[in-house]
Amino acid sequence: MKLPQLLGIDLPIIQAPMAGVQGSALAVAVSNAGGLGSLPCAMLGLGAMREELAKIKAQTGKPFNVNFFCHTPPAPDAKREAVWRAALSPFYKKYGIDPGSIPAAPGRAPFSAEAADVLAEFKPAVVSFHFGLPSKELLARLRAWRPKVISSATTVEEALWLEAHGVDAVIAQGLEAGGHRGIFLSNDLSTQVGTFALLPQIARAVKLPVIAAGGIADAQGVAAAMALGAAGVQIGTAYMLCPEATTSAVHRAALKSEAARHTALTNLFTGRPARGIMNHVMKELGPISSAAPEFPLATSAIGPLRARAESEGSGDFSPLWCGQNASGCKEVPAAQLTLELAANP
Amino acid sequence: MKLPQLLGIDLPIIQAPMAGVQGSALAVAVSNAGGLGSLPCAMLGLGAMREELAKIKAQTGKPFNVNFFCHTPPAPDAKREAVWRAALSPFYKKYGIDPGSIPAAPGRAPFSAEAADVLAEFKPAVVSFHFGLPSKELLARLRAWRPKVISSATTVEEALWLEAHGVDAVIAQGLEAGGHRGIFLSNDLSTQVGTFALLPQIARAVKLPVIAAGGIADAQGVAAAMALGAAGVQIGTAYMLCPEATTSAVHRAALKSEAARHTALTNLFTGRPARGIMNHVMKELGPISSAAPEFPLATSAIGPLRARAESEGSGDFSPLWCGQNASGCKEVPAAQLTLELAANP
Repeated sequence: MKLPQLLGIDLPIIQAPMAGVQGSALAVAVSNAGGLGSLPCAMLGLGAMREELAKIKAQTGKPFNVNFFCHTPPAPDAKREAVWRAALSPFYKKYGIDPGSIPAAPGRAPFSAEAADVLAEFKPAVVSFHFGLPSKELLARLRAWRPKVISSATTVEEALWLEAHGVDAVIAQGLEAGGHRGIFLSNDLSTQVGTFALLPQIARAVKLPVIAAGGIADAQGVAAAMALGAAGVQIGTAYMLCPEATTSAVHRAALKSEAARHTALTNLFTGRPARGIMNHVMKELGPISSAAPEFPLATSAIGPLRARAESEGSGDFSPLWCGQNASGCKEVPAAQLTLELAANP
Repeated sequence: MKLPQLLGIDLPIIQAPMAGVQGSALAVAVSNAGGLGSLPCAMLGLGAMREELAKIKAQTGKPFNVNFFCHTPPAPDAKREAVWRAALSPFYKKYGIDPGSIPAAPGRAPFSAEAADVLAEFKPAVVSFHFGLPSKELLARLRAWRPKVISSATTVEEALWLEAHGVDAVIAQGLEAGGHRGIFLSNDLSTQVGTFALLPQIARAVKLPVIAAGGIADAQGVAAAMALGAAGVQIGTAYMLCPEATTSAVHRAALKSEAARHTALTNLFTGRPARGIMNHVMKELGPISSAAPEFPLATSAIGPLRARAESEGSGDFSPLWCGQNASGCKEVPAAQLTLELAANP
């Protein structure tokens, strides 16, 4: 089954949920254009989430997606936090930041019963998860309005796990994808596979529709994904320069520069591996550091460095999320981009 | 320009040169089927090379490719060799191997004036290189019969470099590919990009025909590569179970098993990163070890372990080269596989 039929949309395009660089505006634009717009909820409190959902409902009658992380929040670990702050101390010194003054950052909350209750008011057609799935009890709360449930697989094993746990479609997230890896059955990054290899193997392994993600930047990419067995695609990076995105000025500048050609998986910004443009702190500490605390606890300590650098127009300490193919980024309205992506090449 | 037109072949399929698992027989079968068969010369002495070329010439009148590495051989470094043998010493002990008894392995020689002289006797239609290009002086020796010269790029920068240095086509080697990474302008593996992202960006950056490699396992994969701008494809892993390949029994068993789903880049077997199926020694030392000497000097010390393990039917110390998509491996004649790969899906 192709994606439009499964999700009740016109075009086989999901706008990837991108926490931190977009809200309801991008989702509304994409859904109204016939794709599936997505609202990332990982960094929204319940109040903000309700506001954003209300805005979407007010501006479109089309299906949309809400996205949640579903990690188990770790217990704060004072020792690991101290190790992490020690690793960052040369930067604190440079900027004259007192580590003792650093507050807890907003962090990223997993899907919860309270979030499900808010969703029930708005009945989104699609709910997507990252890092596996929430508990059966939490999933059961979605039955009230029976949304389609989808989640990301980064290996064939994860795709089979998601199928066995009842999702309606699997996102095959290739190694090229920007932002957080959905990896959840392993911590071993050597298990991560490029889209060209992952997509056809997942498409053959599961009976469900498979959504391709990672490296898709234009209509040719969409056609190639379809040739490899995709029922549709999920595209993030290409949307980051759209006026409806809230991408920061330093992030936009990086996406438009040659720097966007070199991304890496890094755990420095949150504690979990995510793909972003290689920047100063990633070069200095190495993109993957054993000093970074568990997700999402790495965020607090690096936050003030990011804020200070950004206030000076620098992305040296910012998570500049980006996939390995930024060539599709265009400063055009998201509706136009969606139609271009879905055009037959 | 599509590959058949450029190279004078019928099908847009290059059989990837795979040193150690094939010789003339596979090349002959693929060329006679209408693809471009390849003879890997990196591990052949001049005499063996002449014999293999004579066999090809005797069995096909079709174009074929000869492939060479073009690294600069490092000076042996006794200190690094000692560090490397120390890293391997627990395994030597286990097998009762005396490290003092280990002879120099055949190693891998770069392209040379002598090799060019042998080639001139046979005038192959295509000469391909890995790790960049040999010197201008060496390349000039090929002018006697004007073969098409191609080489691998693992980044957009490498593709532009190869174009500036006069190649006739660029192989875009995605991160999914098995065997040695062609990377030559950097040592930083975080620069390596999946096929889905690399191919279209190289195709847009250069004016030359681009050959897609990495993760392509069947006719759908070929079609997807064409949709992303490829003039043709280079496929290796899928050929490794063909009867014409000389793939070892332990290697064939690994390719047919679930183990083939998990590959990694490793420098343990030669000193340069190459993709193979995760095995015992890769797990024990980590797939990338700073103890491994420079390419190709890592080979000698691990050789006896490989030989001993293989004599017991184990691939624990073998380079089990394999791409991230082994799903196309079939125990069918290479001619049949070539035609299947080139069939419109």
